[in-house]
Amino acid sequence: MPEFVCINSRDNEKIKEVVRISSSPKHRKTSGLFVLEGLRLCIDAYRNGYKIEKVFITDEVSKNPLVIELASSVNSCFKISADLFNKISDTKSPQGILCVCRIPTQQPQFNLKGRYIALENIQDPSNLGAIARTAEAFGLSGIIISDSGCDPFSPKVMRASMGALLRIPVFNFSDFADSLQKLSDEGMSIYATVVDGFDACVSDVDFCPGTVVIMGNEANGVSDVVRGIAKQKITLPMTGRAESLNVAAAAAIFIWEMTR
Amino acid sequence: MPEFVCINSRDNEKIKEVVRISSSPKHRKTSGLFVLEGLRLCIDAYRNGYKIEKVFITDEVSKNPLVIELASSVNSCFKISADLFNKISDTKSPQGILCVCRIPTQQPQFNLKGRYIALENIQDPSNLGAIARTAEAFGLSGIIISDSGCDPFSPKVMRASMGALLRIPVFNFSDFADSLQKLSDEGMSIYATVVDGFDACVSDVDFCPGTVVIMGNEANGVSDVVRGIAKQKITLPMTGRAESLNVAAAAAIFIWEMTR
Repeated sequence: MPEFVCINSRDNEKIKEVVRISSSPKHRKTSGLFVLEGLRLCIDAYRNGYKIEKVFITDEVSKNPLVIELASSVNSCFKISADLFNKISDTKSPQGILCVCRIPTQQPQFNLKGRYIALENIQDPSNLGAIARTAEAFGLSGIIISDSGCDPFSPKVMRASMGALLRIPVFNFSDFADSLQKLSDEGMSIYATVVDGFDACVSDVDFCPGTVVIMGNEANGVSDVVRGIAKQKITLPMTGRAESLNVAAAAAIFIWEMTR
Repeated sequence: MPEFVCINSRDNEKIKEVVRISSSPKHRKTSGLFVLEGLRLCIDAYRNGYKIEKVFITDEVSKNPLVIELASSVNSCFKISADLFNKISDTKSPQGILCVCRIPTQQPQFNLKGRYIALENIQDPSNLGAIARTAEAFGLSGIIISDSGCDPFSPKVMRASMGALLRIPVFNFSDFADSLQKLSDEGMSIYATVVDGFDACVSDVDFCPGTVVIMGNEANGVSDVVRGIAKQKITLPMTGRAESLNVAAAAAIFIWEMTR
């Protein structure tokens, strides 16, 4: 049985550290840590080989066999009151389990014959999470994100992805345009998705292995410099009100067309 | 210039009535009223011919020309403090304008040669809102919903739909299965979307005019009785983790295939 140290004070350094990691993208970067909440996400991280540094639980979940299995693999286990848990939780109805995990330092293996969706400066956590879920459902090789977009290790994004971001390869291109140019030079087909000024409709594109499809920022779309790198600018023909289409809905259709 | 009556107390009957309409689906049904918050949604309702019964604003927005235009068309206009507005608002960052509108009593005109998406018992407000947006973007003839699903006139759903639900025809089928059976008898092609036990992949279906595609509940999918009515059970072939696919993402792909 794992041993749990009790923490009662909100001023405890370990509690304060959880709040910092949870709320600050910058602090996640410097510490190399992120926070997951809820049994399902914590178990997903555990089963997918993430290094769990600390686990915080409430008494309520301490008898759950999955919680015991997970906690047995972790060196630092803490028990806190439901009240204190509410204070550090990012959710309205906390489940009473929270893990501090290490952000992988190694990028996963990139496959030049794979199929990827690349997200330039996506700002909404729900959109990033939803796109990750669709990418996983259709078996994409991974997701590429830009440094300027929302942090995939934020608690909100992790929750919206229902753990998909823990299971599929995520590539953080700190120089987004440059890295895409290199992939293009290495023979990959790069497509920018656009509303205006397109070269082709998505239905007319033959997506071969070795493809990257770029979705742009919610307000501004794919930037000019990234459009310039693309082999083709492609679009979804719409008969209705185009501004209605949300980027996660558009991404679902592009991913479907890439993998059908 | 419209005249605004000031209300200062949370115990004012008109304030209490807004909270009741906003929070209770049952009260919306009995009163025939719903609540919209935010300038964009209120203007959408105004421009789409919804009858606005009351408007509540804070001082901050009272000089906005759009607010003045809207309020000029409304008989009962109230000004309340930002503090009181926060208390009746359903959002974290209220914009200072809220309308009480009448739910249309007449169903819109149904077109037997149209293309519709039907939602059986969709529970999540974000999903209903997102599907409405996609339906509008691709110019579907309308959305059919079941009585058992979440209320399209709830403030959360209206917000998630970004006003799409105010602009496209919405049909509430109180007897969902029966009504679909009638449409089938009248010659429409009814398709149920399923994960298992399908007759065809969506790509192999030729969606003619006069089509209804049914999306099922988030947890349980399309019910057996509704599957029994469908001409065909259709699916999206997935190579990845099928349970990852969210119903709004799946709906985006089905709507795309229906209208391409």
